[in-house]
Amino acid sequence: MTMLTDEIKQALIDQALLYQKRAYAPYSNYAVGAAVLADDMQIYGGANIENSAYPSGLCAERVAIFHAISEANKKILAVVVATKNGGSPCGSCRQVMREFGAPDMPIILVDEEGDIVLESTLEGMLPYSFGPEDLI
Amino acid sequence: MTMLTDEIKQALIDQALLYQKRAYAPYSNYAVGAAVLADDMQIYGGANIENSAYPSGLCAERVAIFHAISEANKKILAVVVATKNGGSPCGSCRQVMREFGAPDMPIILVDEEGDIVLESTLEGMLPYSFGPEDLI
Amino acid sequence: MTMLTDEIKQALIDQALLYQKRAYAPYSNYAVGAAVLADDMQIYGGANIENSAYPSGLCAERVAIFHAISEANKKILAVVVATKNGGSPCGSCRQVMREFGAPDMPIILVDEEGDIVLESTLEGMLPYSFGPEDLI
Amino acid sequence: MTMLTDEIKQALIDQALLYQKRAYAPYSNYAVGAAVLADDMQIYGGANIENSAYPSGLCAERVAIFHAISEANKKILAVVVATKNGGSPCGSCRQVMREFGAPDMPIILVDEEGDIVLESTLEGMLPYSFGPEDLI
Repeated sequence: MTMLTDEIKQALIDQALLYQKRAYAPYSNYAVGAAVLADDMQIYGGANIENSAYPSGLCAERVAIFHAISEANKKILAVVVATKNGGSPCGSCRQVMREFGAPDMPIILVDEEGDIVLESTLEGMLPYSFGPEDLI
Repeated sequence: MTMLTDEIKQALIDQALLYQKRAYAPYSNYAVGAAVLADDMQIYGGANIENSAYPSGLCAERVAIFHAISEANKKILAVVVATKNGGSPCGSCRQVMREFGAPDMPIILVDEEGDIVLESTLEGMLPYSFGPEDLI
Repeated sequence: MTMLTDEIKQALIDQALLYQKRAYAPYSNYAVGAAVLADDMQIYGGANIENSAYPSGLCAERVAIFHAISEANKKILAVVVATKNGGSPCGSCRQVMREFGAPDMPIILVDEEGDIVLESTLEGMLPYSFGPEDLI
Repeated sequence: MTMLTDEIKQALIDQALLYQKRAYAPYSNYAVGAAVLADDMQIYGGANIENSAYPSGLCAERVAIFHAISEANKKILAVVVATKNGGSPCGSCRQVMREFGAPDMPIILVDEEGDIVLESTLEGMLPYSFGPEDLI
C-alpha cells in the first residue's frame, strides 16, 4: 500500500474539508468534498456538483479524480472523502478510482470535523472489480 | 440470503445469455446480458446499450434493474450477468443494486457457455456501501 | 417525420401516464413516465428510478429506450414524456434518443392530465448533435 | 450574450487545445479538450477521461465545468471544445451547462488546428431545456 505520511494524510483531509464547503448541492443538501493525491504528489480537490436533472450531477470524488487525471497524471495514489457523517463513496466513484488506482490505494473517510471514520483500500471497497484487462 | 432453487437459477442464467445476444455494443464489442429476479418472482432482462458519446451508454445490469423497477417492483432478489469471460458488474451497477437489493442478494457471473465463474452477494461486491440511510 | 396516427399517439400518452405512476422518485418527488414506439410497432414504457447517490439514478425516457433497444429493436420512432408540468427531457436523454432515432422523430410532452404541452422532434430538441458518424 | 473579446476567445481556444492533448481516451481514441470561462474570469480546462466500463467515463466539457464550479464559481460564461473534427458536445454536457450558464452563453467548437467550426449558444444547442425551475 502507498504509505501516506501523517503530513500528507492531514493535507488531504484539510483539502477534502475545504472542498466540502464548495459543494453545489441544492437538491440533496448533502455536501461532499474530496481530495486526491496524484502521482505528481500534488493534491487535487473536488466538490459534489448536482443538477436539476439528478442523474446529470456528479459526486465529489469523481470531480476530483477527473480533474487530477486532466492535469496529465494518469495514476492516483490516495483518496480522502469528507461528509457530515463519514459517508462512503458510491459504486460509480469506486469504478472511476479502479481505472487509475492500485488495489491497495488508500481510501479514507472523514466526518466534517475531519475525524477518520473508515480507512480502507480500493480493493477493500470494490472487490472482484471490472477493469481494463477484462475488456477483451 | 435468498435461496435460489436450481430451476430459478438456471432460468436466470438462460435469460442473461439470451439478452447478451441483444447487446448494442458496436464500440466495445463487449456484449453483456443481465437477468434480474424481482419480488413478483418475475425475471426481467437487459442488454448493454452503448452510445457514440460513451458515457451516455448503459450497462446490461442497470438496463435490467431499471426495467424491473419500472414494472412496479421495488425490490430485486438476485442478479445474473453473462459475458464472454465472466466479467464483473461495474461499480455503478452495484450502486443501483444497492438501492433495491438486500446485502445478501446473490450476484452470479457466468461466461457465454453459461458456466458459473463467481457467486457472490451485494455486500460481497459493494462493502461499506452508501445507501438511502446515509443521505441525512 | 414519422406520422403518428391519433390512435398510436393516444396509446403512447396513455402508457407514459401509466408509467409515471410507477416512478421511484423519493428524493425529487418529481415523477416521470415515458413511452417509446419502437420499429416493431410495440410500445415500451419506463419510469424514472432514482438513487440515494443521485447521479446513479436514471430518467424515465432512458429507462424506456434502453428497455426497447434490449428487446431487439435498434430504432425508435417516437417518444412521449409525462410529468406534472410538461417538463422536458434532459440533455442526456436526448443524447440516447440520438443514437436510435431519426432527426425528425417526434418527441411529445404531456402534463399529468395527458394534455399535450409541446410537440417537437429530435433535431428540434438536440440541434448540431453528436452521433456515431462523428466518432472518427 | 456575453461578449467575448478576441483575446479571451483565443485564450479559451488555446486552453481547449492544450487539454485535448491530456485526454485519457484509450477506448475511443477520440481526444477532446474543453475550456470554460467562469464568472471569476478565470479559465478552467478539462480532458475526456474514459473508463473500461464505458458509461463511467466523462466528457471533457463536464470535467472542465465540474472543476470550474468546484473552485467556488457557480456561473459559467463560455465554453470552447476542441476535437479532431469539430465534434459537438453531447446532450449530457449540454445539460450540465444548463445548470450554470445563461441561455445566450457562447459555445464554440474548434478543430485540432484551432479553427472555429461552429459558434452557437446554450439555447441554440439545448432548446426547450429542463432546468431548476422545472423541478417543482
